[in-house]
Amino acid sequence: MKTMKISEAVVRRLPIYLRYLNELRMKDVQTVSSQDLGHKLDLNPAQIRKDLAYFGEFGKKGIGYDVGYLIEKIRQILKLDQYINVALVGAGNLGRALSNYNAYLKDNMKIVAVFDSMPDKIGQQINNLTVKPMSELVETIQANKVRIGIITVPASEAQKVADDFVKSGVEAILNFAPIIIRVPAEIRVHYADFTTELQSLAYYLD
Amino acid sequence: MKTMKISEAVVRRLPIYLRYLNELRMKDVQTVSSQDLGHKLDLNPAQIRKDLAYFGEFGKKGIGYDVGYLIEKIRQILKLDQYINVALVGAGNLGRALSNYNAYLKDNMKIVAVFDSMPDKIGQQINNLTVKPMSELVETIQANKVRIGIITVPASEAQKVADDFVKSGVEAILNFAPIIIRVPAEIRVHYADFTTELQSLAYYLD
Repeated sequence: MKTMKISEAVVRRLPIYLRYLNELRMKDVQTVSSQDLGHKLDLNPAQIRKDLAYFGEFGKKGIGYDVGYLIEKIRQILKLDQYINVALVGAGNLGRALSNYNAYLKDNMKIVAVFDSMPDKIGQQINNLTVKPMSELVETIQANKVRIGIITVPASEAQKVADDFVKSGVEAILNFAPIIIRVPAEIRVHYADFTTELQSLAYYLD
Repeated sequence: MKTMKISEAVVRRLPIYLRYLNELRMKDVQTVSSQDLGHKLDLNPAQIRKDLAYFGEFGKKGIGYDVGYLIEKIRQILKLDQYINVALVGAGNLGRALSNYNAYLKDNMKIVAVFDSMPDKIGQQINNLTVKPMSELVETIQANKVRIGIITVPASEAQKVADDFVKSGVEAILNFAPIIIRVPAEIRVHYADFTTELQSLAYYLD
């Protein structure tokens, strides 16, 4: 699938296309033009055509893209046709909020385990998940073939959690802690950091 | 300040540079090379030099960048030398988690008001903020000169909140609801969506 290197910016737009395409399919819409997509998603139609052209020629001139086919292709590219188990460390407000997203993560991606180091958090119920102690992390992750780890602990604990994730064999980490974590090069880390989001938004204020 | 158009990718990296530079300053480090920055931040040093060159020539060959000067410049570019008040709608787990980030948002950016439409949320205390009813949103935002609005309500309510923000005069919106919102072209919207974060991370799994 990864015959060419796709830029991160493109990879980040694909889930956004996917969400709207899923909305269209629910309304039984069969085809969509790059103009429609651009208008709805506030993106340049030429940009959208370029993004989708990375993955082969899906659009037909004057007709547009076949919604079902495009959904299938994007799901394949993003590997959402695979089962992907996710584990989360840090059962505070943010961790609880993210665990509640399981409802949105239809497809085959799911948070299957939540961990915390605080005794008062362990045993708490978040929807159908019970917060487990850190001592069970490696075993649980390996038993559940967890591939993505989410960090929602304070900055001071994030590196230790990252080390535990690496030890247990996760392949990618989504880090919400406001700190840079060090991991081996083969582990992909994305940062989802509220402070940097707000600071980059400030740039666009007049 | 905005004499040239800077790409969103660059704007998103600036807060990441800033965080590390602040760490360096706390350790009394005076200069830093693009190699050091690149190693610490997992970015290509050439990319970093290119990013920083957008804003003028700050680096000295063989010496590197002056940490204090670079912090000052990036803060100016991101407008963090201004006071920026922020309001948040949706006092659920995510809203509470974000309100707790006020501690990290040193500088002059601060969440000054939290709103919710649910009677059981109104009046609750989140740190030093009291959750207010939606009926007070426009007045509070105008009185506090709020410039950025954060949406942490369910998808079904997000557009209505966005409309209220626009009516009250905010200039930019950070939307955590998993839905595309429609606002006038002059309002900048950033999406911080957990689902798309996870889906784009899945692409990098082998």
